[in-house]
Amino acid sequence: LDYQHVQVPFEITLWIMLASLAKIGFHLYNKLPSVVPESCLLIFVGLIMGGIIYGLNDKSPPVMDSDIFFLYLLPPIVLDAGYFMPSRPFFENIGTILLYAVVGTIWNVFGIGFSLYGICQVKAFRLQDVSLLHNLLFGSLIAAVDPVAVLAVFEEIHVNEKLHILVFGESLLNDAVTVVLYKLFRSFCEMPTIKSVDVFAGVGKFFVVGLGGVLVGLTFGLTAAFTTRFTKDIRVIEPLFVFLYSYLSYLTAEMFHLSGIVAIIACAMGMKRYVEANISLKSHTTVKYFMKMWSSVSDTLIFIFLGVSTIGENHEWNWPYICFTVIFCLIWRALGVLVLTFFVNRFHVNTITSKDQFIIAYGGLRGAICFSLVFLLPDFHRKKLFIAATTVVILFTVFIQGMTIRPLVDLLAVKRKRESAPTVGEQIHIRFLDHLLAGIEDISGHWGQYYWKDKLEYFNSKYLQKILLREYDQPKSSIVLLYEKLERKHAIELAEAGQLGHASSHPSLLRSGFLCSNNRTVITDKKLEATLNPDVLENIQEILARNLYRIRRTGPAYNRHTLPGETEPVEHAKEILILRHKSP
Amino acid sequence: LDYQHVQVPFEITLWIMLASLAKIGFHLYNKLPSVVPESCLLIFVGLIMGGIIYGLNDKSPPVMDSDIFFLYLLPPIVLDAGYFMPSRPFFENIGTILLYAVVGTIWNVFGIGFSLYGICQVKAFRLQDVSLLHNLLFGSLIAAVDPVAVLAVFEEIHVNEKLHILVFGESLLNDAVTVVLYKLFRSFCEMPTIKSVDVFAGVGKFFVVGLGGVLVGLTFGLTAAFTTRFTKDIRVIEPLFVFLYSYLSYLTAEMFHLSGIVAIIACAMGMKRYVEANISLKSHTTVKYFMKMWSSVSDTLIFIFLGVSTIGENHEWNWPYICFTVIFCLIWRALGVLVLTFFVNRFHVNTITSKDQFIIAYGGLRGAICFSLVFLLPDFHRKKLFIAATTVVILFTVFIQGMTIRPLVDLLAVKRKRESAPTVGEQIHIRFLDHLLAGIEDISGHWGQYYWKDKLEYFNSKYLQKILLREYDQPKSSIVLLYEKLERKHAIELAEAGQLGHASSHPSLLRSGFLCSNNRTVITDKKLEATLNPDVLENIQEILARNLYRIRRTGPAYNRHTLPGETEPVEHAKEILILRHKSP
Repeated sequence: LDYQHVQVPFEITLWIMLASLAKIGFHLYNKLPSVVPESCLLIFVGLIMGGIIYGLNDKSPPVMDSDIFFLYLLPPIVLDAGYFMPSRPFFENIGTILLYAVVGTIWNVFGIGFSLYGICQVKAFRLQDVSLLHNLLFGSLIAAVDPVAVLAVFEEIHVNEKLHILVFGESLLNDAVTVVLYKLFRSFCEMPTIKSVDVFAGVGKFFVVGLGGVLVGLTFGLTAAFTTRFTKDIRVIEPLFVFLYSYLSYLTAEMFHLSGIVAIIACAMGMKRYVEANISLKSHTTVKYFMKMWSSVSDTLIFIFLGVSTIGENHEWNWPYICFTVIFCLIWRALGVLVLTFFVNRFHVNTITSKDQFIIAYGGLRGAICFSLVFLLPDFHRKKLFIAATTVVILFTVFIQGMTIRPLVDLLAVKRKRESAPTVGEQIHIRFLDHLLAGIEDISGHWGQYYWKDKLEYFNSKYLQKILLREYDQPKSSIVLLYEKLERKHAIELAEAGQLGHASSHPSLLRSGFLCSNNRTVITDKKLEATLNPDVLENIQEILARNLYRIRRTGPAYNRHTLPGETEPVEHAKEILILRHKSP
Repeated sequence: LDYQHVQVPFEITLWIMLASLAKIGFHLYNKLPSVVPESCLLIFVGLIMGGIIYGLNDKSPPVMDSDIFFLYLLPPIVLDAGYFMPSRPFFENIGTILLYAVVGTIWNVFGIGFSLYGICQVKAFRLQDVSLLHNLLFGSLIAAVDPVAVLAVFEEIHVNEKLHILVFGESLLNDAVTVVLYKLFRSFCEMPTIKSVDVFAGVGKFFVVGLGGVLVGLTFGLTAAFTTRFTKDIRVIEPLFVFLYSYLSYLTAEMFHLSGIVAIIACAMGMKRYVEANISLKSHTTVKYFMKMWSSVSDTLIFIFLGVSTIGENHEWNWPYICFTVIFCLIWRALGVLVLTFFVNRFHVNTITSKDQFIIAYGGLRGAICFSLVFLLPDFHRKKLFIAATTVVILFTVFIQGMTIRPLVDLLAVKRKRESAPTVGEQIHIRFLDHLLAGIEDISGHWGQYYWKDKLEYFNSKYLQKILLREYDQPKSSIVLLYEKLERKHAIELAEAGQLGHASSHPSLLRSGFLCSNNRTVITDKKLEATLNPDVLENIQEILARNLYRIRRTGPAYNRHTLPGETEPVEHAKEILILRHKSP
């Protein structure tokens, strides 16, 4: 037996296996995941595992290594989040998201830091040795909402798209602020005296860290898109580039102390549309599937490790400090959301309702990022107290808030996600309105969202597409692409049901051609952000089939090889009947 | 700048990126890969890289770590090889393959070892300090044909299936022999005296290492199949299990000093049919795509590292020893193949022609396995000589033999791979003959290949399928599965060409049903090993469409809801016309 030789890969594989089997286990009992979020169950499994290890070895189980977390577990989740981010709602609410992420996080950090310092002044609590700087440092790591925890809970409660993107976008973008404040306070802790220059340099760093991350990400993203132009002959390594470049963007950003999370999101959002157009359908399936798989495994591992790391002797218990930390986290977040939303609502027509505000405040879950940051703290005599407080806050938010948020959403009747995606007709109207608004903004001289979007589209189709896309001379309208996608899906379903007719109908050929030429006059080749759920697909399919029927029937009239009267009314009626019959 | 923090993942990512970009680079110039095998180009890139590193640092570039090779780079390639192994030719020729792999390898080891010892006795060569045991140890590592090198070359020259499986199967299965002999001689080198008991124990180990590997592999493979029974609700982590279990089988086998390569092949071949039936279509695409991608990257990295590691000061040059090593490798392999094939041909009807024998002998390429094994040797004063000799043999076989084998195959007019896969008609006949032969063997009491295959199939459908498959009560005939596969592919093509008719034809439904019931009487649910190339697919599709037409027309006659005369001759003729028109 030679265990040492294979130890590292063997143990990694076993951990991943445990995580996957735990996931299968939960899903075997269907009732469990509908009551308790999966993240809670996983932490629970971790706690049991940690307890077993502690009981057997009689020493603390190994804590989650911060390096492993930041270098290997976090990137897949953020990549998945960035790649599947619905870009329209994200950019529509980018101002609000940034306000929450930057101003809100700073507010929380200083609020929590100063009020905990106040608590420390009470003599009875025996906390007078915790300095203001240490409290602020603690505030900076405990204030950040965690994207992994937020995703895990919000993916299950299906709130409306805007609410989801506000909480989730904030949790992603506050990384830049957290990185800056955490590093700033940590370096202040080690400095003998603090000059005002250092404070100003710290403020300047926000922009460097955030914008630098975006720059690094976009550079790698566009390089990835450019690389996939040349992979036509070796389709098999196409998916690799998506993963390699986005991981490189993350590592490069981390190397220069920029925000890795922001970088990988910019990279994923930047490359997505070009890579999708360049790579083959199977490669794309592999990319999507593998991304989901990887992030799902990472996520599972993080929560299990969180549970395992909780067990042990790393904690120093101090009731007042820990209780007040939880309370201040809740209060300052609620206050921050209220104040910021007040200003946001003054400048927007679509206001954020008070119910939404409650869910935003309540959805501020903490997770593994705080946990890793607290372990990265330099050693000082109260580190174990901070670890204990962080653990309690994480467990409180994930268990109590995570488990009660679903009943609360039901109770408050918060607006849910639209079950059906917008129909093709709606989408055409949305685009039309986009064009119209861009025109109005241009005329009125108000350079708003639509104006910039239009300019970006122009720049994209004029320059970027020519460099980054393999077949840039044939940009297809996305309506046509969507239609093709639906047809393909429908065809597979038909084939699987054994209902595929071998005799292809020539009208459908004409119809397809007609559709292309018809739509290109109206619609430019913008990307539809249609979320293609199975139900939705069927819905669109049905609408297309019904609506296009007339076009198709009138289509052949333009053809010089057919006469208008060739299609008999009987056949006409029969075909409609079949269409009706087929629609569920 | 904080490079150290991200160094490990950053450098790994960069190496993979370099490998992938090199691959893209070769394929941009289409003429290059058709003359020079990719493996040669990659070694060449590695040599240049190594030269640059050597020139810049003025010290030897890092050699490929044997642990990295055996633990991380080799498993993906072997997994890919095992998963896509054509099982019918493999099992049909298993006897010959084992003979080459076991007896042939032992023959080569002792042949090369003893004759090099003879060379060492020549005083003029100054090699008298190399003992017989060291020569045998060297023989044991240099004798093994390398699967990675063989795959890289044989995938490009398209020789006939039998020839391919003989060389490739040998290269995979000789791992067990190599492991045993290498470890045996290495332990003998360190022992003061060798007892005859140790030699007998060594012989016994062959069986333990080989059969143990098969056992470990099958155990993990069947567990993997069993696990995928329960993944219906979380499709997204299905592909993970294929990789996790096969990797665990490799690591477990290595841990117990069994043959990891044999284990992973047994695991892949064991789980394939059950996993394929259990997981979703998209999961399966991901599995296949990712396996190909991963093995392709591993393969690229191995050849680049091989090139990089060649540069440096690890070599001790001794003309006679190195030249005679190359010569003996060639001679003993040629002799071994001649002698073994003589015996094989006496017991088989389908003999191995002398041309095939030449290619088998000539295709004995050495690669990264030898290279890693020579670096794993315990330090002794002539290790650098062995490294030099191994490097020369590898470069000689990969460059000289690898580059000349294609012209030789052309020159000798070696039987090539059949371009078109067997038609459905042929496949039905093959199965029919299998049943017939199994019956004849049963009656005549000769328990041959067909008898055992039939028994295994019976055991599989009676017990294994019920445990391992999710829907074991509906085993589909593989002809029906093939037909569905073709239909699906055809449907996608139709949809992509915009020719999909929306009105589904009810005769096709009947046809499908008829086909099922019709075939089940004749054919059991054995796996067709049809290689589905695009041309082949179209061919089968055409044959199916033509031949099934009649069945379909006569089909409704059995239905009690339709009358025989319902289909008009006009429609009949029109439909044939459409079919004719559509076939290219």
